[in-house]
Amino acid sequence: MKFYDCSTAPSPRRVRIFIAEKGLDIPVVEVDLGNRQQHTAEFTQINPYRTVPVLQLDDGTTLTTSSGIMHYLELLHPAPALIGRNPIERGLVVDLDSRIEQDGFMAVGEAFRNRSKAFANNVFTGKHNHVQIPELVGRGRRRVEEFFSWMDAHLEDKEFIAGDVFTVADITALVTVDFAKWIKLQPTDKQKNLSRWHQLVSDRKSVMVT
Amino acid sequence: MKFYDCSTAPSPRRVRIFIAEKGLDIPVVEVDLGNRQQHTAEFTQINPYRTVPVLQLDDGTTLTTSSGIMHYLELLHPAPALIGRNPIERGLVVDLDSRIEQDGFMAVGEAFRNRSKAFANNVFTGKHNHVQIPELVGRGRRRVEEFFSWMDAHLEDKEFIAGDVFTVADITALVTVDFAKWIKLQPTDKQKNLSRWHQLVSDRKSVMVT
Repeated sequence: MKFYDCSTAPSPRRVRIFIAEKGLDIPVVEVDLGNRQQHTAEFTQINPYRTVPVLQLDDGTTLTTSSGIMHYLELLHPAPALIGRNPIERGLVVDLDSRIEQDGFMAVGEAFRNRSKAFANNVFTGKHNHVQIPELVGRGRRRVEEFFSWMDAHLEDKEFIAGDVFTVADITALVTVDFAKWIKLQPTDKQKNLSRWHQLVSDRKSVMVT
Repeated sequence: MKFYDCSTAPSPRRVRIFIAEKGLDIPVVEVDLGNRQQHTAEFTQINPYRTVPVLQLDDGTTLTTSSGIMHYLELLHPAPALIGRNPIERGLVVDLDSRIEQDGFMAVGEAFRNRSKAFANNVFTGKHNHVQIPELVGRGRRRVEEFFSWMDAHLEDKEFIAGDVFTVADITALVTVDFAKWIKLQPTDKQKNLSRWHQLVSDRKSVMVT
């Protein structure tokens, strides 16, 4: 098994933290997104979608989304459970994780990729070209502010996002809050629940080494 | 258990087909999105996110995303398996399903909601207001065309999207192709694999009654 990673990019970081939480040892291949290595003929043979993360199995099968990789590894290595310990927890964690991905992670990406010169013609990851739309910078930032407000209220009575145990929803949310530094947005001093949670998860060993 | 549905809306249709494929009998409550019933005090008590689908359990717990509901029901009622029969199938189906949701379903929504007068101030489902951005109509349509091309190539050597068995990836893709009628985009005559697959899945009993 091989994990195609990029140590500076937010999407593969989700998988990196997940692997560390599971205590797995999977060989890493670093892909240099800064030099557009994902668009080379060599890499597009591995992943025609031209994105990381990629998990390549020994028979050559590839998984190319964070969600797909994490659900695969969860079934293969059930302990510690990171996507719920029973049906209702599974449902709630997937619910929260998809909400955080959609309303948080994608919103930061919208604000970031519609402004940075590097993505002038390439606002989505992958092979298709779509040009920047300046209004999406402001819209993305407003959505991230709404997301932080939601997180702060949601964490009022919970240690972790899905309750009393760390899950993939915490991973996606942590990566989102850190990714938001790239657009110079961070939780405010008044968002005490969000700040407390962010400190708590940032201090985990799996996070400190990734 | 109760399933809050809207018989004309694409998101809850995913869950509706999933429930029919599992052969489950879950009482349905119809929510009249056309008359903005999701914004009423009564409904926001059930789902503060103001969206359908919602699955409400007997203890009052609610699941509020298609993915969360389907992963919950899959663990509770494993047969027939709709999210993979083993770890690698699970990974591949989640991979494909999240790609189809992101690049297909969300792209149709982008084109549709940024044009229809009904969503002038409300381009995302839920409670937050964001105004329409006219460029997103064209961008959404181009993304849907790219999605159809990808689907047609992907289905060249497969009966169903994940291979030889019907899965949630087929459900999300079918709902996406039908949703695209709302923006007057459909597979072209040249997209023979996509058209063949669309006919095949449209003829399923679970789909014909939903």
